[in-house]
Amino acid sequence: MSASSPRDKFLALFPKLSQELLAYLRAESMPAEAISWFERNLQHNTPGGKLNRGLSVVDTVDILLCTDEQGNKVKQLTEQQWEDAAILGWCIELLQAYFLVADDMMDASLTRRGQPCWYRVPGVGNIAINDAFMLEAAIYHLLKLHFRDRPYYGHLLELFHEVTFQTELGQLVDLITAPEDDVDLNRFSLKKHHLIVVYKTAFYSFYLPVALAMRMVGINDESLYKRALDILLPLGEYFQVQDDYLDCYGAPEVIGKVGTDIQDNKCSWNINIALENASPEQRAELDKHYGQRNSDSEAKVKAVFSAKNIDVEGRFKKYEKESHERLTELIKELPQNVGAGEKGIGLKREVFTSFLEKVYKRTK
Amino acid sequence: MSASSPRDKFLALFPKLSQELLAYLRAESMPAEAISWFERNLQHNTPGGKLNRGLSVVDTVDILLCTDEQGNKVKQLTEQQWEDAAILGWCIELLQAYFLVADDMMDASLTRRGQPCWYRVPGVGNIAINDAFMLEAAIYHLLKLHFRDRPYYGHLLELFHEVTFQTELGQLVDLITAPEDDVDLNRFSLKKHHLIVVYKTAFYSFYLPVALAMRMVGINDESLYKRALDILLPLGEYFQVQDDYLDCYGAPEVIGKVGTDIQDNKCSWNINIALENASPEQRAELDKHYGQRNSDSEAKVKAVFSAKNIDVEGRFKKYEKESHERLTELIKELPQNVGAGEKGIGLKREVFTSFLEKVYKRTK
Repeated sequence: MSASSPRDKFLALFPKLSQELLAYLRAESMPAEAISWFERNLQHNTPGGKLNRGLSVVDTVDILLCTDEQGNKVKQLTEQQWEDAAILGWCIELLQAYFLVADDMMDASLTRRGQPCWYRVPGVGNIAINDAFMLEAAIYHLLKLHFRDRPYYGHLLELFHEVTFQTELGQLVDLITAPEDDVDLNRFSLKKHHLIVVYKTAFYSFYLPVALAMRMVGINDESLYKRALDILLPLGEYFQVQDDYLDCYGAPEVIGKVGTDIQDNKCSWNINIALENASPEQRAELDKHYGQRNSDSEAKVKAVFSAKNIDVEGRFKKYEKESHERLTELIKELPQNVGAGEKGIGLKREVFTSFLEKVYKRTK
Repeated sequence: MSASSPRDKFLALFPKLSQELLAYLRAESMPAEAISWFERNLQHNTPGGKLNRGLSVVDTVDILLCTDEQGNKVKQLTEQQWEDAAILGWCIELLQAYFLVADDMMDASLTRRGQPCWYRVPGVGNIAINDAFMLEAAIYHLLKLHFRDRPYYGHLLELFHEVTFQTELGQLVDLITAPEDDVDLNRFSLKKHHLIVVYKTAFYSFYLPVALAMRMVGINDESLYKRALDILLPLGEYFQVQDDYLDCYGAPEVIGKVGTDIQDNKCSWNINIALENASPEQRAELDKHYGQRNSDSEAKVKAVFSAKNIDVEGRFKKYEKESHERLTELIKELPQNVGAGEKGIGLKREVFTSFLEKVYKRTK
């Protein structure tokens, strides 16, 4: 990776945005301890992840503005265009930071991205709740600072508000469907799983980056946002199903962690597939052993998953193939450069195929 | 109180707003358990308080639209005007609910408004963090539903964003200045106290209701928002100083609670006045006994407060008199109906005098 990979360039913008936020606290005469606390909060929780969501905004704007009808790259983003897209990308990363600080408290998680969860840092504790709030407030402060005079400012605010609410709905359904300390498989279903993954993950991770990029380049045809949604929500759902699958069947040395979904009573795709196909005896075995914190129970659940009539692995391969075909078809149906107005900027298939390529057949 | 007191009428609107929010969850195909959970969250946390902040929006709109130059009431709000103002009022109450659910968790409080804090309701626990998030999301959903087509919609969003961030800053300074389990009076000062009360309370409780009302009636002269701030922040500060004073010197049977600020290591006005005027011996006594959970220590702190050279009570009376005079002067300087445009709607002194009257000389 070169010293100025797209990721490095994106990462290098964060200190500038952080300074803009801290300058606001200074302008409001906040004490030094509060300023350095917020700086640590921003730094600990925002830039340490894969940054896929943030980078997606830059990639999508690049495709929309710099490729020709055939999908060939014909120019470069101006510095201003790159920075606008990257700021929107960092706003998604702040949104994710806001969710993750809180999720880790609600799940009583210990580590995140190879470091202690923020609430577990000495001296932080429950102050992390207010810190999560402040990460969210930072989004609207940055949007105001950089986009207030743009014609699409109102659309940006609306997208963040809507997607935030949707993600919180997904989190609520997840929390009340699969509490760690109260196993009841009657609450699970593939329909619940669908709702949880679409609301908790797909809206903010897949739809939001593309919709922000579309707003930024001036796409105003509302029907195109619907088409983007129709492709990106199933894509996000597939991504999460794959995540669930890899938790149980991925090689730990490849995915970088040992899966714990079975012991943690997660409402994963695997268990829901198993519940749909289990015999009464298999169902009894799942009721007895799912969500139990011991490896014997986990092995018994895995044995049910592998039973011939259930075959989670086989069903996943089938689901993967079918969903890839369905999404390829949906993308093909999208007329190339549809919605291009006087400015010549329309929605391009390449936006979606680039996502599809990144997500399918990943092993980690 | 008549069956249709202003408060009753305001309260009667909440179920309608709650239903609008739940209808959104239904439209998004959320499961019944999630819908009833959100309904309980809204009901438990939003309508049970004094509703002063919400009612202030209605009162302010009423003064701005229905009184003449001399401050006489000459007409009634239309039903539409009343409802618009009341919805904005409920949005402030939702904002407060969002803060209080979280504050109670951070302070490990037991009860609020005569019932258990939300996180202490059986089955809720840390899910309350996501529930707080959802109370905030409800604000932007309601604003979109009711104000999206109004010319001042963007201003409403901006006001909520800014005031939310400011309140969170106040909460942060409070949390790191006065942690309950680590007493260090060196962190305290009247300047810190000023910052905490202005940011944590005055912006959302005093400025926000008036600014929302001003936006709603179409006041666009930005200098008038500055003038409103210049009056309402000191008024809010006075309100909180009074609250601190009453915690120690109010009659429990009047204020409805036994004050615990001394035992809780609160960065209150009283302790900061004492610190500013204490002799080295008195300071040592405060260091030893402030924030200790026993009534002997509390009595020793109170004795220092009452020492002749400190005299918190006397200084409060003086502060009260001076701040009342200063605010009366500021209000007098405001030209009557200033900023009235072609629509004839300007800012009126009565907006501020009505606040002043409600706040001064209260005993609870």
